[in-house]
Amino acid sequence: MGEFELIREYFARQPVRRADVAVGIGDDAAVLDPPAGCQLAVSADMLVAGVHFPQDTAPAAVGYKALAVNLSDLAAMGASPAWFTLNISLPRADSSWLEGFSGGLFALAGPYGLQLVGGDTTRGPLTVGIQITGFVPSGQALLRSGARVGDGIYVTGPLGDAALGLMGLQGGVSLSKAQRDHVIGRLERPVPRVREGAALRGVASACIDISDGLAADLGHVLAASGTGARIELEALPLSPVYQSLQEQVGWGPAVSGGDDYELCFTVPPSRQSRLKALADELGCRLWRIGAVEAQPGLRLIEPSGAMYRPNVPGFNHFSAP
Amino acid sequence: MGEFELIREYFARQPVRRADVAVGIGDDAAVLDPPAGCQLAVSADMLVAGVHFPQDTAPAAVGYKALAVNLSDLAAMGASPAWFTLNISLPRADSSWLEGFSGGLFALAGPYGLQLVGGDTTRGPLTVGIQITGFVPSGQALLRSGARVGDGIYVTGPLGDAALGLMGLQGGVSLSKAQRDHVIGRLERPVPRVREGAALRGVASACIDISDGLAADLGHVLAASGTGARIELEALPLSPVYQSLQEQVGWGPAVSGGDDYELCFTVPPSRQSRLKALADELGCRLWRIGAVEAQPGLRLIEPSGAMYRPNVPGFNHFSAP
Repeated sequence: MGEFELIREYFARQPVRRADVAVGIGDDAAVLDPPAGCQLAVSADMLVAGVHFPQDTAPAAVGYKALAVNLSDLAAMGASPAWFTLNISLPRADSSWLEGFSGGLFALAGPYGLQLVGGDTTRGPLTVGIQITGFVPSGQALLRSGARVGDGIYVTGPLGDAALGLMGLQGGVSLSKAQRDHVIGRLERPVPRVREGAALRGVASACIDISDGLAADLGHVLAASGTGARIELEALPLSPVYQSLQEQVGWGPAVSGGDDYELCFTVPPSRQSRLKALADELGCRLWRIGAVEAQPGLRLIEPSGAMYRPNVPGFNHFSAP
Repeated sequence: MGEFELIREYFARQPVRRADVAVGIGDDAAVLDPPAGCQLAVSADMLVAGVHFPQDTAPAAVGYKALAVNLSDLAAMGASPAWFTLNISLPRADSSWLEGFSGGLFALAGPYGLQLVGGDTTRGPLTVGIQITGFVPSGQALLRSGARVGDGIYVTGPLGDAALGLMGLQGGVSLSKAQRDHVIGRLERPVPRVREGAALRGVASACIDISDGLAADLGHVLAASGTGARIELEALPLSPVYQSLQEQVGWGPAVSGGDDYELCFTVPPSRQSRLKALADELGCRLWRIGAVEAQPGLRLIEPSGAMYRPNVPGFNHFSAP
């Protein structure tokens, strides 16, 4: 089967047809109608087999996660998803792999109203690059730079489960079947917090998604905002699976583990009363884990009051030996 | 050196700062202001080492070409370049490679007023994925589907040189130093026809860029338009280098060779008088090579009047054995 037929067969069967896509896949470029009164939020992420996921990962999980990490970036900006492009290289034209991959991709694209508008399919090592575009009302994007002293620091869900999933896959922790299913599900099928991000417009002063670990990602917010922070570790939301393993794994996965894709955001004192209503409206919980302080740096406080120092400042693709 | 420092060092030194980029590199997503009255043209292309270029290609040539092929897609739509994102995986954090690559990339981005607004840098096999966005006045994009019976078929420049460059690299043809420099220059440093594409808005009825070869790419136009065409091979523009080799290589590289990135476009009879003025204005030549016909299929006519049948219908990444 030829390249063009592959593209047509698997990627033209997408579930979403948006009215703002004047020309989709099949010309030299897509032609798109941006909405009036909005800015575009644009992000790109890449997954490489053997680096971001094991070579034998189920193709549906690869498709799902490739889109999920990009959706999570839009969530962190408070943007609503609209369009994406896909650059994919594959060792061979494997129709069962493409069937699974595109299924995983579109299973996520559908509910978020996200349309595939272009891309490239080529032979090569397995890599998946996505660029995503969303809309945000002009001037309302949630930036990293808006945290101010006195703001509360929040997260949208449990931390560290994805890191436990990776430890489980690598034999670094022993898990029951049920524990394993839970944490590997969180690793392979993170739920991008798109609704939460959009709802936080006008409420949060700064926002980021946790892809490289709480310490690293909150660190980016603090650096961009010119502030520091104090986090109470006992306030971190941990899943029942994490809690049952905490004696063994400590705080590391929750503080430094990546891939959870929860949002971490800051809220000024004047707007904190709106959070409760917002959580009720969303049907989700939001956890306050600390506060922004003037003193630079991130202070992680153990329940004993001692300062906790993470071993790993966050995942870094080029710092591994 | 860490991932983030790499990105900052090489990719934050770009030459272009656009007023419509509210937030560039450094947040979860860029925040961009699309212009009123325009549609967005969006395209994505990927280059893989060992597939699209030899592993030891000079990094500046890789950077240049990765952007050039995307610019060429915008040219084929008649769109003006604005923003791009870059997903790149590299076997190791090689600063001299990144220096060369980013130099080649920005050498092309600068003159086209194109700003890098985001992306991802990761460890992995050498692959470069770019998504590019341009602007086109609403309703004026040059589509593949607009060719009509009786339209003239044109190209913007010599065909087949890039294919001769590839043959030269692979030992398929023997070249003098000067010949080699010319055709490898055309292969590695194609000039995207952005000005020509924009000038063809309102003149061309259909347009495509020649990345997979004239026969294959014109074939896409004919298929999208529901028409056929007749091409006079003696009307094809060939470089002096090509002409000196033609006895040896025949019509193949000009008809089926990819990577030239000239535009192929159709013009209705009523607008053909405007082409001369347009070419003068652009300071370039435009070559008429044939005409759109009702009979489906592409007829390539040799100077003798015989029908020419290409051996290879166009480059296909997955059809090679």
